[in-house]
Amino acid sequence: MAEIGIGMLGYAFMGKAHSNAFKKIAYMTWPPPLEPRLVGIAGRSETAVQDAAERYGYEYATKDWRELVNDDRIGLFDNGGPNSLHAEPTIAAAEAGKHVVCEKPLGRDAEESYEIWRRVAATGVKHLCAFNYRFVPAVRLAREMIEAGELGELRHFRGRYLQDWGDDPTLDTWRFEPNEAGSGALGDLGAHVVDLARFLAGEISSVSGFVKTFLPGRRVDDAVEAAVEFESGAVGTIESTRLALGRRNAFQWEINGSKGSVAFDMERLNELQVFRADGDRARGFKTVLVSETEHPFWEHWWPPGHIVGWGETFVHELHHVLRAIADDGDIAPYGATFEDGYRAAEVCDAIVRSGESGRRETISYRSS
Amino acid sequence: MAEIGIGMLGYAFMGKAHSNAFKKIAYMTWPPPLEPRLVGIAGRSETAVQDAAERYGYEYATKDWRELVNDDRIGLFDNGGPNSLHAEPTIAAAEAGKHVVCEKPLGRDAEESYEIWRRVAATGVKHLCAFNYRFVPAVRLAREMIEAGELGELRHFRGRYLQDWGDDPTLDTWRFEPNEAGSGALGDLGAHVVDLARFLAGEISSVSGFVKTFLPGRRVDDAVEAAVEFESGAVGTIESTRLALGRRNAFQWEINGSKGSVAFDMERLNELQVFRADGDRARGFKTVLVSETEHPFWEHWWPPGHIVGWGETFVHELHHVLRAIADDGDIAPYGATFEDGYRAAEVCDAIVRSGESGRRETISYRSS
Amino acid sequence: MAEIGIGMLGYAFMGKAHSNAFKKIAYMTWPPPLEPRLVGIAGRSETAVQDAAERYGYEYATKDWRELVNDDRIGLFDNGGPNSLHAEPTIAAAEAGKHVVCEKPLGRDAEESYEIWRRVAATGVKHLCAFNYRFVPAVRLAREMIEAGELGELRHFRGRYLQDWGDDPTLDTWRFEPNEAGSGALGDLGAHVVDLARFLAGEISSVSGFVKTFLPGRRVDDAVEAAVEFESGAVGTIESTRLALGRRNAFQWEINGSKGSVAFDMERLNELQVFRADGDRARGFKTVLVSETEHPFWEHWWPPGHIVGWGETFVHELHHVLRAIADDGDIAPYGATFEDGYRAAEVCDAIVRSGESGRRETISYRSS
Amino acid sequence: MAEIGIGMLGYAFMGKAHSNAFKKIAYMTWPPPLEPRLVGIAGRSETAVQDAAERYGYEYATKDWRELVNDDRIGLFDNGGPNSLHAEPTIAAAEAGKHVVCEKPLGRDAEESYEIWRRVAATGVKHLCAFNYRFVPAVRLAREMIEAGELGELRHFRGRYLQDWGDDPTLDTWRFEPNEAGSGALGDLGAHVVDLARFLAGEISSVSGFVKTFLPGRRVDDAVEAAVEFESGAVGTIESTRLALGRRNAFQWEINGSKGSVAFDMERLNELQVFRADGDRARGFKTVLVSETEHPFWEHWWPPGHIVGWGETFVHELHHVLRAIADDGDIAPYGATFEDGYRAAEVCDAIVRSGESGRRETISYRSS
Repeated sequence: MAEIGIGMLGYAFMGKAHSNAFKKIAYMTWPPPLEPRLVGIAGRSETAVQDAAERYGYEYATKDWRELVNDDRIGLFDNGGPNSLHAEPTIAAAEAGKHVVCEKPLGRDAEESYEIWRRVAATGVKHLCAFNYRFVPAVRLAREMIEAGELGELRHFRGRYLQDWGDDPTLDTWRFEPNEAGSGALGDLGAHVVDLARFLAGEISSVSGFVKTFLPGRRVDDAVEAAVEFESGAVGTIESTRLALGRRNAFQWEINGSKGSVAFDMERLNELQVFRADGDRARGFKTVLVSETEHPFWEHWWPPGHIVGWGETFVHELHHVLRAIADDGDIAPYGATFEDGYRAAEVCDAIVRSGESGRRETISYRSS
Repeated sequence: MAEIGIGMLGYAFMGKAHSNAFKKIAYMTWPPPLEPRLVGIAGRSETAVQDAAERYGYEYATKDWRELVNDDRIGLFDNGGPNSLHAEPTIAAAEAGKHVVCEKPLGRDAEESYEIWRRVAATGVKHLCAFNYRFVPAVRLAREMIEAGELGELRHFRGRYLQDWGDDPTLDTWRFEPNEAGSGALGDLGAHVVDLARFLAGEISSVSGFVKTFLPGRRVDDAVEAAVEFESGAVGTIESTRLALGRRNAFQWEINGSKGSVAFDMERLNELQVFRADGDRARGFKTVLVSETEHPFWEHWWPPGHIVGWGETFVHELHHVLRAIADDGDIAPYGATFEDGYRAAEVCDAIVRSGESGRRETISYRSS
Repeated sequence: MAEIGIGMLGYAFMGKAHSNAFKKIAYMTWPPPLEPRLVGIAGRSETAVQDAAERYGYEYATKDWRELVNDDRIGLFDNGGPNSLHAEPTIAAAEAGKHVVCEKPLGRDAEESYEIWRRVAATGVKHLCAFNYRFVPAVRLAREMIEAGELGELRHFRGRYLQDWGDDPTLDTWRFEPNEAGSGALGDLGAHVVDLARFLAGEISSVSGFVKTFLPGRRVDDAVEAAVEFESGAVGTIESTRLALGRRNAFQWEINGSKGSVAFDMERLNELQVFRADGDRARGFKTVLVSETEHPFWEHWWPPGHIVGWGETFVHELHHVLRAIADDGDIAPYGATFEDGYRAAEVCDAIVRSGESGRRETISYRSS
Repeated sequence: MAEIGIGMLGYAFMGKAHSNAFKKIAYMTWPPPLEPRLVGIAGRSETAVQDAAERYGYEYATKDWRELVNDDRIGLFDNGGPNSLHAEPTIAAAEAGKHVVCEKPLGRDAEESYEIWRRVAATGVKHLCAFNYRFVPAVRLAREMIEAGELGELRHFRGRYLQDWGDDPTLDTWRFEPNEAGSGALGDLGAHVVDLARFLAGEISSVSGFVKTFLPGRRVDDAVEAAVEFESGAVGTIESTRLALGRRNAFQWEINGSKGSVAFDMERLNELQVFRADGDRARGFKTVLVSETEHPFWEHWWPPGHIVGWGETFVHELHHVLRAIADDGDIAPYGATFEDGYRAAEVCDAIVRSGESGRRETISYRSS
C-alpha cells in the first residue's frame, strides 16, 4: 500500500486531534487511500514535542518546523499551530512541494489569509483549511439534501456557536493574545459559522453587525453578532460567543427553504433535524440519527445508532485529503480549500469593519 | 362582587382569545378582582359580530365601535381589531374615561404608537398593550429570576419568532395589507421579540438589520433580521419570519448572564430551560416544567405537571388588568403599558430605517 | 339552542376540571351539541360546595347528592367524587334516567366496577368513564393512525405513568385511604395506562406483575409493575408510580408496529412522536405538534402551534358526551364506556392477583 | 514502557471494536498502563482473518484459536467470537495463564456461564465480561452518584434496550441461530439491561416475565418483557426487543431514588438526565453533557462538549483491564467480572423460566 509521510506542526489540542485521525485512517477507513506515516512533529516546547512524538509515534520531534519543510519523506504538512504560525510554515511547506492542511482560521485576517491562499495556490499542491465541521455526517447529509434540491430555494440561515469557557478572567492562552490569535470568538468560533453558512447556503454578500468584549482586560472579542444576507437572497444571523453559560460546544444552525428545513446542534452532532413539507398529516421535524449505512462517512464505522464522536470529524476530513492526493482529485467542494479559508476571513473582517463603521458592509472577494 | 363592563372590538382570533379569557377569569381566578360583564362587541361584519355576541354572551353586538365608547356600562374597552383600527377607537375610549387594552402592535409605526400612548396617558386610565407572552408562566419566572439577580449581569439576548403560515401566495388576510397591518413579520412577530427583549434584558439602544420580502407580490415584509445592543451592554440578535417551514409558533429566546442562562420555546411554553453556574458536577440546563404551586400564575390552575395552553396567557394578562383597575395599581412593570407598546414600535421602526440606510440605528425614546 | 341540565358531584380537583369544561363547551365548541346548564353541585363540605356553586355558576349547592338525582332539570349526572362515592350515586342517577359520567377508576375493584356497569347499562342511558386522556389530541391522532393501519401490526406497547407527589409521608388525602380510594398508584395512575393500552393496542390477555408499597405506614400501593400480553399477540409493560422524583405528570407510552411507531409523554401533551418505515434516507421520529386544522379536536381552538393545556381534554371529552346525547350516538369507541371502566378494573385486579399469587394471570371479562 | 501481547478471537463487529480500542489506548490514554502489542488474531474465514491482521496490525492471523492460546507472547486473550465460541477458548486461554476478556453474554445460558466463570476463576487470571456500557461516561457518573448516596434509597429501575434491525426475515446471521447465539434479544440486548440494572441498582431477586418471538421461522426470541424486584426492595421493568421500529440503539433506563433520579438513552450516550430534590424553585431534570474534565474517563479526551462516540466505551473498558493487570488490581466493581457475566445469565435464564412456568422466578446465585 502506498504511504504518505506526515509532518505535523503543533502537539496540543489540534495536534492530538489530527494525529489521532491519521492513526485511525490507517485501519478504520480500510483500505486507506494512502497509508499515513508519521514522520515528524514540531512544536515550541522541547519536552512537550518529544513526548508527543513518542505518544503518537512520530519518528522524530523538532523545535524547528523548517526541519519538517526540508524533510523529503514528508508529503503532507499539517499545520495545527497557533494562528500566528499559520502563514509562514504553510507557505514554506507548499513551496517545498508538500500538500498542506492548515487549521482554521487560515490567517489572522483576510489579508494574511489571502496571502496564504495566493502563495499556496501558485504551487499547485493540495490545500485544505481544516473547517472540520464540514465532515460531521449530519452536516454533510444536510449539504447533500440541499444540493439535491430537497429543501427548495433557501430563505434563511441562522447560526450561532456558543461556548462558555471564556468566562474566566484568570485563563491564560494564546487564544486571548491578539497577535497570536488575530481575534477572539470571531476567528475561533465565528469563522466556523461563516464556513458552514457558505458551505450550506452559499456566498455571503453583506453583513451588519459588531464584535464585543465583555471581560475587563480581555484583549480579544468575546462575542460576535451579525445580520447577514446571501448572494442567493437568503437572509439570517451569525453569532458566536465564549460567554454563553451552560453551552459547552453548541454550534447550532437552522436552514429554512421553500420545501423544508434542517437544524443541527454540535452538542448532539449525530443528529439532524429534518422537516419536509410533504403534506403528511403527521407533520414535524424528524430527529434523524445520522448513522445509517447509506449516510455520509458511515461506511467506516459501526452498526446504525452506534454514534461517533467529535474526534471522528478529523478522520473524515483527513481521509478526504488523502483521497484527493491519491487520486489527484479536488478538495472542493466538500472540503474547504484555502480559498474557502480566505473567503471566511473576508466575512469575518467585514463584521469587524461593520462594527467600527456602523454600516452594512458589502463583501467582495479577490481572485488568486 | 364588584363587576366591570367589557366592550370588545373584534371577534376573530383575538376577539375569541380575549373573550375566552374574561369568561375564565370569572371562575378560574377565584375570587376575581372584578367580575367581567360582557356588555358589547363590535365588528365589521354584521352576521359575524352577531354570532360572536351570542357565542360569548355579550349583551349586544354592533357594527359601530363608537357605540361601545358611548356605553356607560362599559368600564374596560378591549381592542382586538386589526392594526389600522387601534388608534382611533382606543383613544376615543380612553378619552371617554374607559380603561383600555389594545392588541399589539400598538400602532402601525412609532409615530402612531406614540400618539396613542400620549393621548391615552393624558386621560389617566389604565392602559395595557397586549403583549400576552409576558404572561406565560415560564416567561414570568425568567423575569423574576433575572430581577432577583439569579442570572447575574446579562450579556446576551437572542430571540427569534418563527412561523411558516406565510408561505402561501394565495392567502388573503388584512395581515398582508400594508395599510391595515403597518408591516408584516415585523409588527406581527418581531414586535413580540422586541417586547420580551425589553421585558427581560432591558432597553435596546441600537439595531443593525433589515426587513426582507420573499414572495412575489407580497406587500409586507416576510422576515426581519437584526443585531442589537442593549443599554446594559448586553448584545444579541432579533429575528422573525413567517417562512420558517416546520416552525408553527416557535418564539424561541435565550439569555446568558454571568451566573446562568435561561432558554425558552413557545411551542413548549410550559417549560423553561435553566442553567445555573453553581459548581455542581452534574452540570447542565434543567428542563423546568413551570407548573408548581409556587410558580407564577399557577395558583389558578391544576396540580403540578398538568400543563396549561396558549389561551391561558390571556387569562393571566387580563386578570392583571382587572387587578390593577380594582386596586388602582400599576400595569407596569409586569404588564406592557402603552409606553411599552410605543417603545417596541421605536425599535421596529429603527430596524426598518437600518434596512433602508444600511446603518446602525441608535434608538431614542420620546416622553409622553 | 337545546340545553341540558348538569348535576355535579364533587367540587375539588375533578369538580373544577369538569365544571370548567362545561363552561367552555358553551362557546369554544361552537355551536355546542347541547348547551350545558349548571343546575346543581353536591359535596361533603357545606361551605366548600356553596363556594363552588357560586364560583362556577351552579344554581344551587347541596350536601346530599340525592337532591341532584331527584332533580328533573338535570339530564346529565357527572360524578367527580372520591372513588368510594362512585357506585351508589352513579347507579341511582342512571336509574333515575339521567345520563352519567363517572371519574376513573369506575369502582374500587372489578367487582364494584362490574356492578356499576351492569346496573347502568340496564337503564339505557349514556355512560362514560372519564378516562380523559383518550381526548388528548395526540392520543386520538395515534388511535386514528393505528385504525388506518399506518403502524401495521402492533408488536409492543410500553406505558408508564410517573408522578412524584406521593413521596411525602405527611400528606393526608382520600387517595391514601384504602376504603375511599380502593388502591393507590394502581387505580389512580395505572388505570389510565391500562385504558390507553386497551384504547390503542387492544384487549389485554394476561399480566405478570405486582404492586409495591414503599413508604412506612402507607396503606395503599405506591407503585405497579407488570409485563403484559395482548390478545393480538403484542407484548409490553405497564407501570405506574407516585415516587418517581422529578416526574410530575409523565404518562409516557410507546407503541411499535410492523410499519411504524408512535411515542408520547403527557408532560408534552401537544406532541406525538411518529416514526414511519417509509424508506426515507432521513429516517427518524417526527415531533408532531398536534395542533393543525385537520388534527383531532383542533377545530375548536387556535391557529397551529398555539398549544392547548391539560384542562382542554375535559372539554373534548364532555363535548363528546353531549354530542352522543344530542344525536343519540355512541360513546364507544372513542369515549370509554362503563364497560371500558370495568375492563380496566379487571386488568388492575389481575395485577394485584398476580402479585399475590406470583403467577401470570389470564384475564377474562364478564358480559353485562 | 511495559507491553502486553494481545490475542484476539474474532474479526467482525467486536473484533473491530476491540482492536480499535487497543490501538487508541496506546496513545489516547497516555501513558497507558501497558502498551498493547497486537500479536495474533484468529477467525473462521482465512481471507477475512488475514485481512483483519493486516488492517489492525496483528503480527499473524490464524484459523485456529489454539495457536493464540499456545503463544507465549500473548498475555491477554480477548474473545470477540460468537457466543458458541466463548466457553472453550476462554477457559483454555485462562488455563494457559492468560488474562481473559470475553464478550457478553458470557455463555449461552447460566450453566455454561457458570462453568466459564468457575474454571477461569480457579486459574487466578484477570477476567472481564465485556459489558462495555459500564464504561460510558454517563453510566459511570450515574454509578458514582448512586454510590455517593446522591439519589438516596433506590426505588425504581426501568430499563429497555430497543433496536429494530431484527425486522427483516431475510437476514442471515449467527445471532439468529439458537445453537450459536443461545438466545435472541435476550442475550444480545436483554443481558445488557440486566447488567446495568445490577451495576446501578444492585442484585435482582425475582423476575416475572417472558420472551416472545414474532417473525415466522425465527428460531430465537425477538423480545423480552419482565417485571423485576431487587434485593434492595427497588422494583421495575426490564425489556428488550429488536423490533422497535425507529429505535436504532435505544438502550434507555431511568432510576428513581428518594433524593433524585437519573435517566439515560444510549442514542445520546454523552448525556445524563439528572434530577435532584434540592428545593430549587427551578425544578427539573438537567441535561448533563458528561464531558467535563472532572467527569469519568474524560481525562483522555477533548475539551468539554466535544463528545465521544460509542467506540470509545471499549477504550475505557480495555484500559481498565490493562490497568488491573499492570497494578494487579481488581476488575470489580466497575468492570464486569465473569461472575457478573454468570449472574446476568442467571437473571436471563430466570426470565425464560418465568415465561415457561408462568410464575415469578426467584433467583439464586451459585458460588464459584
